[in-house]
Amino acid sequence: MSRKLLARKLLAEAVGTAFLLAAIAGSGIMGETLANGQAGAALLPHSLAIGAILFVMITLLGPVSGAHFNPAVTMVFALNGEMEQREAAPYVATQILAGIIGVLAAHLMFDLDIAQVSSKTRTGIGQWSAEVVATAGLIFVILGGLRTNPAFIPAMVGLYIMSAIWFTASTSFANPAVTIARVYTNTFSGIQPFDAVAFVIAQFIGALCGWRLAKAVWPRER
Amino acid sequence: MSRKLLARKLLAEAVGTAFLLAAIAGSGIMGETLANGQAGAALLPHSLAIGAILFVMITLLGPVSGAHFNPAVTMVFALNGEMEQREAAPYVATQILAGIIGVLAAHLMFDLDIAQVSSKTRTGIGQWSAEVVATAGLIFVILGGLRTNPAFIPAMVGLYIMSAIWFTASTSFANPAVTIARVYTNTFSGIQPFDAVAFVIAQFIGALCGWRLAKAVWPRER
Amino acid sequence: MSRKLLARKLLAEAVGTAFLLAAIAGSGIMGETLANGQAGAALLPHSLAIGAILFVMITLLGPVSGAHFNPAVTMVFALNGEMEQREAAPYVATQILAGIIGVLAAHLMFDLDIAQVSSKTRTGIGQWSAEVVATAGLIFVILGGLRTNPAFIPAMVGLYIMSAIWFTASTSFANPAVTIARVYTNTFSGIQPFDAVAFVIAQFIGALCGWRLAKAVWPRER
Amino acid sequence: MSRKLLARKLLAEAVGTAFLLAAIAGSGIMGETLANGQAGAALLPHSLAIGAILFVMITLLGPVSGAHFNPAVTMVFALNGEMEQREAAPYVATQILAGIIGVLAAHLMFDLDIAQVSSKTRTGIGQWSAEVVATAGLIFVILGGLRTNPAFIPAMVGLYIMSAIWFTASTSFANPAVTIARVYTNTFSGIQPFDAVAFVIAQFIGALCGWRLAKAVWPRER
Repeated sequence: MSRKLLARKLLAEAVGTAFLLAAIAGSGIMGETLANGQAGAALLPHSLAIGAILFVMITLLGPVSGAHFNPAVTMVFALNGEMEQREAAPYVATQILAGIIGVLAAHLMFDLDIAQVSSKTRTGIGQWSAEVVATAGLIFVILGGLRTNPAFIPAMVGLYIMSAIWFTASTSFANPAVTIARVYTNTFSGIQPFDAVAFVIAQFIGALCGWRLAKAVWPRER
Repeated sequence: MSRKLLARKLLAEAVGTAFLLAAIAGSGIMGETLANGQAGAALLPHSLAIGAILFVMITLLGPVSGAHFNPAVTMVFALNGEMEQREAAPYVATQILAGIIGVLAAHLMFDLDIAQVSSKTRTGIGQWSAEVVATAGLIFVILGGLRTNPAFIPAMVGLYIMSAIWFTASTSFANPAVTIARVYTNTFSGIQPFDAVAFVIAQFIGALCGWRLAKAVWPRER
Repeated sequence: MSRKLLARKLLAEAVGTAFLLAAIAGSGIMGETLANGQAGAALLPHSLAIGAILFVMITLLGPVSGAHFNPAVTMVFALNGEMEQREAAPYVATQILAGIIGVLAAHLMFDLDIAQVSSKTRTGIGQWSAEVVATAGLIFVILGGLRTNPAFIPAMVGLYIMSAIWFTASTSFANPAVTIARVYTNTFSGIQPFDAVAFVIAQFIGALCGWRLAKAVWPRER
Repeated sequence: MSRKLLARKLLAEAVGTAFLLAAIAGSGIMGETLANGQAGAALLPHSLAIGAILFVMITLLGPVSGAHFNPAVTMVFALNGEMEQREAAPYVATQILAGIIGVLAAHLMFDLDIAQVSSKTRTGIGQWSAEVVATAGLIFVILGGLRTNPAFIPAMVGLYIMSAIWFTASTSFANPAVTIARVYTNTFSGIQPFDAVAFVIAQFIGALCGWRLAKAVWPRER
């Protein structure tokens, strides 16, 4: 029974994360193709498509799996007692695999080589600090939303990420599964393998900062 | 009595589908005219106009007819016991006719020849797989929404399609009535008659995939 | 007492209509200035600014005055028994005056000549049919919203107009007070005086069509 | 106890205002960088990012501190009896400091010099009247929202500011803490120190106008 329930949760995480990454990679490819080299014209629909799919998938799958789609969220939830800790590892594995599948699906849809590795450089103190800020804000929004207004979490997460794509220099990956998956596309949204490592570290640091900040603002939470 | 009720439902489907297609064809014409050849500048308002009119028409007409506006949705609902099966055929016929009327209305408003047939090629494995993904996601969102959060279906469908227009290579037709109607416009949003056949097939395959996936995530549904 | 209440209602209509027209004229001026002649880049923020201010002002002032901001809405409401008929004339006069004030405020803010008359041609069967469709849809949305989902009227009206600005060839004036006020600005959103007459006629025809259509879909309404 | 509560409120004001300013400065830098000199392409994502972060932060932190993020709002609330007057001064000091920190964080993320002073001219009767109108509208929306529909205040404020960025010539600062913080960035969103003084004066005048107008429309409020 509990095994079956976990399978359903993992399926929900898989579907949500795969659509998220299909949206990230796909809208990046579409945007760049149509923008004739003006990057702003590519980033705008990219940010809207990502914000919208996050709203949809969190609304839909939140009641099933919690709709994390993000190992940093799963980590904080496990540490914070919001989920059973033994479910954390399968969640994270599912998110990473499903994210990669989403990217490959985007390649299939756009008639590109399925297997790619990014050569796009994303590095430096600015980028790393941007990922710390972006992930801290994301965790702060989610934990605060759970305390004050859970029904608005899907809208808040979607709009926060849409906004952060524009105000963080890294365009707000804020998600280790997303970061790993984006290694596998040499298009608009890619990141080269080595740079991804620092991004993931920055994201976990940011997640801990956001958790600490949320505890300070909503002290009753444990 | 029931006959009168069916007439009201069909009128609701007709109004909603006609406005949807007027929005698709009209915003495509407007966008292309104003974009000076930069396709991204045409697709962005196109995606926003379609997402917005879907939200409006589903909110408004959902309580009357269910607001399908889409033969793939009607098919899944009929198979899944969400509607009376004998209503399915008139629904589909109404959607197709009203969709064509919406396209013709757009031509009228933009001073174009009313009767047109598209010569735009939309074909290939990428496009077809994009239609499978787009329609599977749409059906998954609708069926999942019915299980978890019906009040959010209009927002979810509008935002899903707005997003999918950017992340699927085909710009997410995801609707056989829409596909047929778009044969009748040789503008931004058109599709040539022969290519439309493969799109419709891909959409029904996608609809069945989405239905199957929704059953796996929400098993209590029949 | 009732006199005081009417004054409050008229003040609400005045504030809402003035902000609506300031948004229409102002966002048109800002958009055109920044767009370097690419009209699509001006129309996109224009449509978002108008949709947003409609949502805000209808949410805010609906409970006070009904938030018509539109003589065609006031006419249908008066005919349909949704308001006291003797309030209709002061409503319409207030809407027209406040709309003009909103346009003049936009000129003040953008350091333009306060008093202007438009020389922009907006005429022809396409434009007129666009106004009939746009206004019919607007009235249909409002009357249907009252029957099915009043809480969503602000969002539906805002998103409907945002969408219709793109899919109707006239960019969806759909409002006689708006049309008259836009005569007084020789900027992006203007319309020359003679052409405004035909627009207003088309809008009232569209309003009656929308009313009739709403009665057919929601027959219990009187 | 009350001391601890005040500290929590100030922390909430600090987080919200810092994210608001990071969004303002950061999206301005990103937008300008990507827009290749077309200012409209920079202002559009700027307006969306600001509107979105306002919605998120007000939804999240409204239950804690009221989510003012704005000395003009705090002043009106203090005068209007919506908050304890002795909390007003620490609120304002926190908003100003946190706003500056948000701007500096944006510089850090975008690898720019941390310490900057703007040399951008923003002056003249048009700009000042724009700030009066923008702030009057903001206060009107907030006070009216408290009377009619408090749950919609976050959406109304976010969408009002998004819209006003386009329809006011000054791009709607409408906030003395925002104005002061924007002195400290010599990028897209900056304002030179001397011009900021007149903006702040115009904002307080606008706030009083908005307060007066709200009292006229909702007379029961004190």
